[in-house]
Amino acid sequence: MKLKRYAYFLTASLLLSAPAFAQTAPAEPKPLLGFDAAAATAQYQLETKFDAQLKTDNLRDWMKRMASRPHHVGSPHGKDNADFMAGLFKSWGYETRIDVSYVLFPTPKLRLLEMVAPTPFKAGLTEKPLAEDATSGQTAEQLPTYNCFSKDGDVTAELVFVNYGVPRDYEELERRGIDVKGKIVIAKYGGSWRGIKPKVAAEKGAIGCLIYSDPKDDGYGQGDVYPKGAFKPETGAQRGSVLDMPTYPGDPLTPGYGSTKNAKRLDYKKAPTLTQIPVLPISYGDAQPLLAALAGPMAPDAWRGGLPIPYHLGPGPAKVHLKLEFNWKNEPVYNVIATMKGSLYPEQWVMRGNHHDAWVNGASDPLSGMVAELEEARAIGELYKTGWRPKRTLMFCAWDGEEPGLLGSTEWAETNAKQLQKNVVAYLNTDNSERGFLFAAGSHTLEKFFNQVGRDVIDPEKNMSINDRRRAFDLINGNPEAQKDARDRADLRIAALGAGSDYSPYIQHLGIPSMNVGFGGEGEGGEYHSIYDSFDHFTRFKDPNFAYCKVLAQTMGRASLRLVNADVLPFEFQNFSNTVAKYGTEVKLLTDNMRTETDKQAKLLAEKRYEAVADPTETLLPPKAREAVPYLNFAPLDNALLKLEQSANAYAQARKTNTSLSNDRKKELDQLLYQAEQQLLSAEGLPRRPWYRHQIYAPGFYTGYGVKTLPGIREAVEERKWAEADEQIKRTAAAVERFSAQVSRAAAVAAPAPAQ
Amino acid sequence: MKLKRYAYFLTASLLLSAPAFAQTAPAEPKPLLGFDAAAATAQYQLETKFDAQLKTDNLRDWMKRMASRPHHVGSPHGKDNADFMAGLFKSWGYETRIDVSYVLFPTPKLRLLEMVAPTPFKAGLTEKPLAEDATSGQTAEQLPTYNCFSKDGDVTAELVFVNYGVPRDYEELERRGIDVKGKIVIAKYGGSWRGIKPKVAAEKGAIGCLIYSDPKDDGYGQGDVYPKGAFKPETGAQRGSVLDMPTYPGDPLTPGYGSTKNAKRLDYKKAPTLTQIPVLPISYGDAQPLLAALAGPMAPDAWRGGLPIPYHLGPGPAKVHLKLEFNWKNEPVYNVIATMKGSLYPEQWVMRGNHHDAWVNGASDPLSGMVAELEEARAIGELYKTGWRPKRTLMFCAWDGEEPGLLGSTEWAETNAKQLQKNVVAYLNTDNSERGFLFAAGSHTLEKFFNQVGRDVIDPEKNMSINDRRRAFDLINGNPEAQKDARDRADLRIAALGAGSDYSPYIQHLGIPSMNVGFGGEGEGGEYHSIYDSFDHFTRFKDPNFAYCKVLAQTMGRASLRLVNADVLPFEFQNFSNTVAKYGTEVKLLTDNMRTETDKQAKLLAEKRYEAVADPTETLLPPKAREAVPYLNFAPLDNALLKLEQSANAYAQARKTNTSLSNDRKKELDQLLYQAEQQLLSAEGLPRRPWYRHQIYAPGFYTGYGVKTLPGIREAVEERKWAEADEQIKRTAAAVERFSAQVSRAAAVAAPAPAQ
Repeated sequence: MKLKRYAYFLTASLLLSAPAFAQTAPAEPKPLLGFDAAAATAQYQLETKFDAQLKTDNLRDWMKRMASRPHHVGSPHGKDNADFMAGLFKSWGYETRIDVSYVLFPTPKLRLLEMVAPTPFKAGLTEKPLAEDATSGQTAEQLPTYNCFSKDGDVTAELVFVNYGVPRDYEELERRGIDVKGKIVIAKYGGSWRGIKPKVAAEKGAIGCLIYSDPKDDGYGQGDVYPKGAFKPETGAQRGSVLDMPTYPGDPLTPGYGSTKNAKRLDYKKAPTLTQIPVLPISYGDAQPLLAALAGPMAPDAWRGGLPIPYHLGPGPAKVHLKLEFNWKNEPVYNVIATMKGSLYPEQWVMRGNHHDAWVNGASDPLSGMVAELEEARAIGELYKTGWRPKRTLMFCAWDGEEPGLLGSTEWAETNAKQLQKNVVAYLNTDNSERGFLFAAGSHTLEKFFNQVGRDVIDPEKNMSINDRRRAFDLINGNPEAQKDARDRADLRIAALGAGSDYSPYIQHLGIPSMNVGFGGEGEGGEYHSIYDSFDHFTRFKDPNFAYCKVLAQTMGRASLRLVNADVLPFEFQNFSNTVAKYGTEVKLLTDNMRTETDKQAKLLAEKRYEAVADPTETLLPPKAREAVPYLNFAPLDNALLKLEQSANAYAQARKTNTSLSNDRKKELDQLLYQAEQQLLSAEGLPRRPWYRHQIYAPGFYTGYGVKTLPGIREAVEERKWAEADEQIKRTAAAVERFSAQVSRAAAVAAPAPAQ
Repeated sequence: MKLKRYAYFLTASLLLSAPAFAQTAPAEPKPLLGFDAAAATAQYQLETKFDAQLKTDNLRDWMKRMASRPHHVGSPHGKDNADFMAGLFKSWGYETRIDVSYVLFPTPKLRLLEMVAPTPFKAGLTEKPLAEDATSGQTAEQLPTYNCFSKDGDVTAELVFVNYGVPRDYEELERRGIDVKGKIVIAKYGGSWRGIKPKVAAEKGAIGCLIYSDPKDDGYGQGDVYPKGAFKPETGAQRGSVLDMPTYPGDPLTPGYGSTKNAKRLDYKKAPTLTQIPVLPISYGDAQPLLAALAGPMAPDAWRGGLPIPYHLGPGPAKVHLKLEFNWKNEPVYNVIATMKGSLYPEQWVMRGNHHDAWVNGASDPLSGMVAELEEARAIGELYKTGWRPKRTLMFCAWDGEEPGLLGSTEWAETNAKQLQKNVVAYLNTDNSERGFLFAAGSHTLEKFFNQVGRDVIDPEKNMSINDRRRAFDLINGNPEAQKDARDRADLRIAALGAGSDYSPYIQHLGIPSMNVGFGGEGEGGEYHSIYDSFDHFTRFKDPNFAYCKVLAQTMGRASLRLVNADVLPFEFQNFSNTVAKYGTEVKLLTDNMRTETDKQAKLLAEKRYEAVADPTETLLPPKAREAVPYLNFAPLDNALLKLEQSANAYAQARKTNTSLSNDRKKELDQLLYQAEQQLLSAEGLPRRPWYRHQIYAPGFYTGYGVKTLPGIREAVEERKWAEADEQIKRTAAAVERFSAQVSRAAAVAAPAPAQ
């Protein structure tokens, strides 16, 4: 009941007190984690000044300038954008440098896709320039449509349609007696990160992989196509990396260390993160003749897309020839690093980043986030000119090479690993963003802190905070769990970080507390990674007035300013404890549900019910029998979770009862706080991918971008590796215990024992 | 645990004992409800002889003959088929007559559909004959594609896409600010019985209605189209009745009484069951240009179909002109009635029926069921020749005019109402049927009886009973509730009867215990009510070997033979009690869930959460506020259900303890048993549709074919008529109490009190 009233209160108070479309914080300052009352008042005043600086014209001008030509890795305009940004940062008073790494970046030399049977067809593989889109005709500078880090290949084989190409899709194919061994698969985009598709296809024995954008998911099934509407036209194809990032991101030739000029490099042919088979993305225009030429059983209902054809599975009679050759070159990537030194704790660094490279012109991805970061830096530079100084060091980073595989950010993180683990307080990331609702993910030790940020930022379309609007979204559009959280929980639940942008090396490899933030849900588009991701498209369909670009700057600027200014870093551990306990409940429930399902299936198999149901004119084999699910020993995790709760409570209590600490004590406390996340790393990393060391958050090995929480345990259970699951429970529990011990130390520093 | 073992036992015993593809009952007779052991043995011997008679060649020959030309109401071939069947019945020894009713049967005089803006387009409205389908070219005799009982009309208006055109679809349109008043709506087939679409559209103020077959639901989205595959080709359109059958079926001019030659008739222009607006079915080929010309908001995700276009809602700019004129003629319908008189209880009639009229050639619908019935009659005629005599009278009926609105069966039922309520023991219906799984629906007083029928019939594709195969289907493909039933319940749960075939007047108007049975799930097709429902199509895609046609005859023949032969009629009331109690739980849960949802929505509305979430560039109004759901007085129903359970148990106990009864007592008992269902009728009928008198089963007023159980209560709740709901609880409870009292009387007759 208390929590429910809180939710009402927030809404009601904002409705009464906030002026219509106010862009500033409410007059009455609310408590700020890490600030005492006087400091909070000063902080709010600073933030009001910060807000007043933000100009949408800058956002628009910079996006137009930086998106005016293609700016992928190795392109002249990419280097030019880096120099341009470095110049801006310098002009605003930042110590600025461009750090260069040298990374493998293959580009297409030859792309051929043709159907050789039953009727000849040659795929166009070319996105059509449009008169209505000013930059779409820059064909000489555009990278062709391709999947970066596909291997070279020249294969001819029958085609098989594999839905999204994730493991469970192959189980369906197997039940229909279809083996992809020696075949070329065609998968729809979606349902997983794209790199999973060729990875799983190769595991299953396929020799080539096509990925197409089905119009149901990404085309006329979503709305009018570009340029009439925002959505993917017939020739549009999604470029994108297929590097095996769930194994490790960054330069495939320098696993785990920086790709400096003279670093030792693997032979690219032996790099473990390149695909095992050639893979090419194609448009639905190119896919339709291939799919229409398939025979064999109909695809399951849920697999069928929006093309006006029956979706058959094959194999064949469609037979295709796929030939790919790439230029396997090393290219420099230019990371722009701009620093404003802290006045009190210069050795504590708050990092703010976004990437600047694109697949083509990249107005939305990445410039919508990049220009917000620039404007934050400019506005803070203006505050600096008025005499304000940050207590901690603030660093703005503009990463290169994100698109091919987080190359810039990962190599920089690996190059500077020790220093970063010593100094970095938090990493705040953004990427593409548009009109709509707040989406925030990150370390749950920052959840309460970030809730106070969102509480104080007003949505540009509605007379309410971005938090309240997001809460309304969850209440109306959320799944039952999200609805319940939105009703009952004081803080909005932030999501966990998987992969998909530059935070990955910081949180998952180095254990640096991180956040990733954006707005979305009201922009429209099928422009992603195509020539249509342009200034023209963005300003028609994504955020025409740059209002959400600006609110992103307000949000992230506030987050940065609070982190650099706080008396004590605003980490909080009760929300973290609550969240990890929830993950613990989830993995137990997952195990129990798998046990129930396995037993149910075993019974149906023993009774031959599948054979009873099967239509004798079709092939539908029973599912494969599966080993029963044993009971796992979750006790170590449960015990660790108990200690975590106790230490989190102790820290909260200590901070409540002791507000005055010496600066030295604060410094000691800060370091304990921001390095706590590093206790969640295990030295061994996750099974089969030691680069990923965080025991709470990781991208899924078979989902890619999608996060797996408690990844060691959860993936062992999902993959039915029971001994490994028991082992990972212990390892995760140990990490949680290390973390709790550090939080207890922090509690002791925050509230020293009374003098005897 | 006991029930689970029962399921195992059935499977195991059949696997061990039944020979492969055995067409005969197992050697060891199982107990038969209504038979003592000796009688059961004799009955099994009879059934074995019956099975031995069945010939698939007859099924094939008759279907080919009867489907050789179109045979709709009023067609020469329809009359010819009736005469042909009457001749067959006579030749097999049945007293046979053709009863004629005279019914309104409109056929198209003029059909015009054109788009007048933004670009002109004239719909073809013509199904294309195919060289691969021998009868598809009989264009001179085919009825054009139309919806029978549409009114005449000549309307021009902007078009609005309304999904399936059911009430909740209009709620979505209203939230998007779209009003269909004065517009023409275009709805997809599916999601409800077709007649609901123009009914709801007219209620909402639309002036015309188009219904098209979307290729996702009924076209290439399902598989290769005819003639390559079984599914609906581009020009295929679904004919069908739009008579407001949920108000009353049968001749619209003679509501509630027989349409004899000189019956008093309403003016057709005042007949309440004709549509209020003109309505026309069209193909997806004709629909595509209309839908592609719509603008306005995108249709909600779930509404979008399989055409390669963005599905917009309109209204307009597509503007269409729809002009329809019909020949409003009375036509004779020919019901063939063949009787074999009972030797012991000639006044107890077992009725077996199927319709014989079609929309065009109707191989599947209705002949797949009709030829099975004929073969049952022939085989039983052969048994008669060997000297066997049924104890009760057996009647075979072949109805005419089912397609336009159950015209033949309803008028015959209304004409003979009193006699039928006096004499008919049960009505056993079939209609179209194909390869696959048993689907049975009906009076739950026959559930246990019918389970014993299905137990003893072997599936032609699998070495198991049709019951066990259906159980396996439920275990694997059923929803969680069906899976649970299939695991835990000794008897397969039969479905409740809504509408859609000729059982409707018998059960819902007269209270005669009824069953409807068919096989399905493995046939394929988009031929329904089109020129492609042909012998060629049936024998390629539906049941090529007539194996399931034959198994339908085995099933229904057994059911008839057991009903006519039983010592005591095999009614059973515990399953009925269990089922009605389940319906009671459902309506309570429905009310509770509506209350929870209403409260939740009221809260969201009060908090203005919908406004908070709405995209200001689009229209999405909050849902309409709804009155809170009161607590209803379910006590009368609960008390009645308790009595029902007690009387059902008492009858079961009485039958168990007393096996020898005089023939007179049996006769008295029989009559109590088969007339028990009539106690479930209420004199007033359902609100706003007094023709429907059954308080347990009715077609939904807004679903059409779909059943509503406890319809008075359930629909009052769904339509939020709270006072009516309380009233209907009482009325339903009273019906259940009357029924229980009759069952108690039956118990008393079955087990007379011991002599004092």
